[in-house]
Amino acid sequence: MDPDAVAKAFVEHYYSTFDTNRAGLANLYQESSMLSFEGQKIQGSQSITAKLTSLPFQQCQHAITTVDCQPSGPAGGMLVFVSGNLQLAGEQHPLKFSQMFHLMPTPQGSFYVLNDIFRLNYA
Amino acid sequence: MDPDAVAKAFVEHYYSTFDTNRAGLANLYQESSMLSFEGQKIQGSQSITAKLTSLPFQQCQHAITTVDCQPSGPAGGMLVFVSGNLQLAGEQHPLKFSQMFHLMPTPQGSFYVLNDIFRLNYA
Repeated sequence: MDPDAVAKAFVEHYYSTFDTNRAGLANLYQESSMLSFEGQKIQGSQSITAKLTSLPFQQCQHAITTVDCQPSGPAGGMLVFVSGNLQLAGEQHPLKFSQMFHLMPTPQGSFYVLNDIFRLNYA
Repeated sequence: MDPDAVAKAFVEHYYSTFDTNRAGLANLYQESSMLSFEGQKIQGSQSITAKLTSLPFQQCQHAITTVDCQPSGPAGGMLVFVSGNLQLAGEQHPLKFSQMFHLMPTPQGSFYVLNDIFRLNYA
């Protein structure tokens, strides 16, 4: 499968899970995974999911603007760089964000998120 | 050395080289390096440097807003995620950008850029 298509499919899966069943994101992280969320570093699937499910908004919708991807080296990983808009329920204007994922292959032929860095793009 | 300090030192070196001696960036890339510049993929130090030195502006100044870093896996690499402003000579307003680097260690104890993804944050 074309790497760009894999990246796009991952991104669609990630954000639709975030927007409809945030706790389900736990399956995409492992114990070695690390999230930097607005500068705060969090390690491990359980802690990352606790952070993402306790953000101060319940309903949200991500709309993707750009997806870039590159192979990350000989280990078969993939870097995915996303920009988009995050619409929070009840807010008039969406928030712009940039996020990068470092995906690593699993023995089952899928990917998990080893690295995740999220930043809002402040105006 | 603290990884955050290494990342910050790399970022300062990268953008000061970009702003004062853009051709000198060639030393930071290798043949396996890949740049995605506003969606265009370019491979190899020579092609990447040719792209960066032929951008349609001569003088510019980068101002960094945030730097995040994470170890990228067992190979000793480091992911660096930057947001900032790019001021072009003669333009009134700076451009906001986000950029990520995947740094890999060299035998000399330094780092080179294996992956580089750059995007302007359009308003």
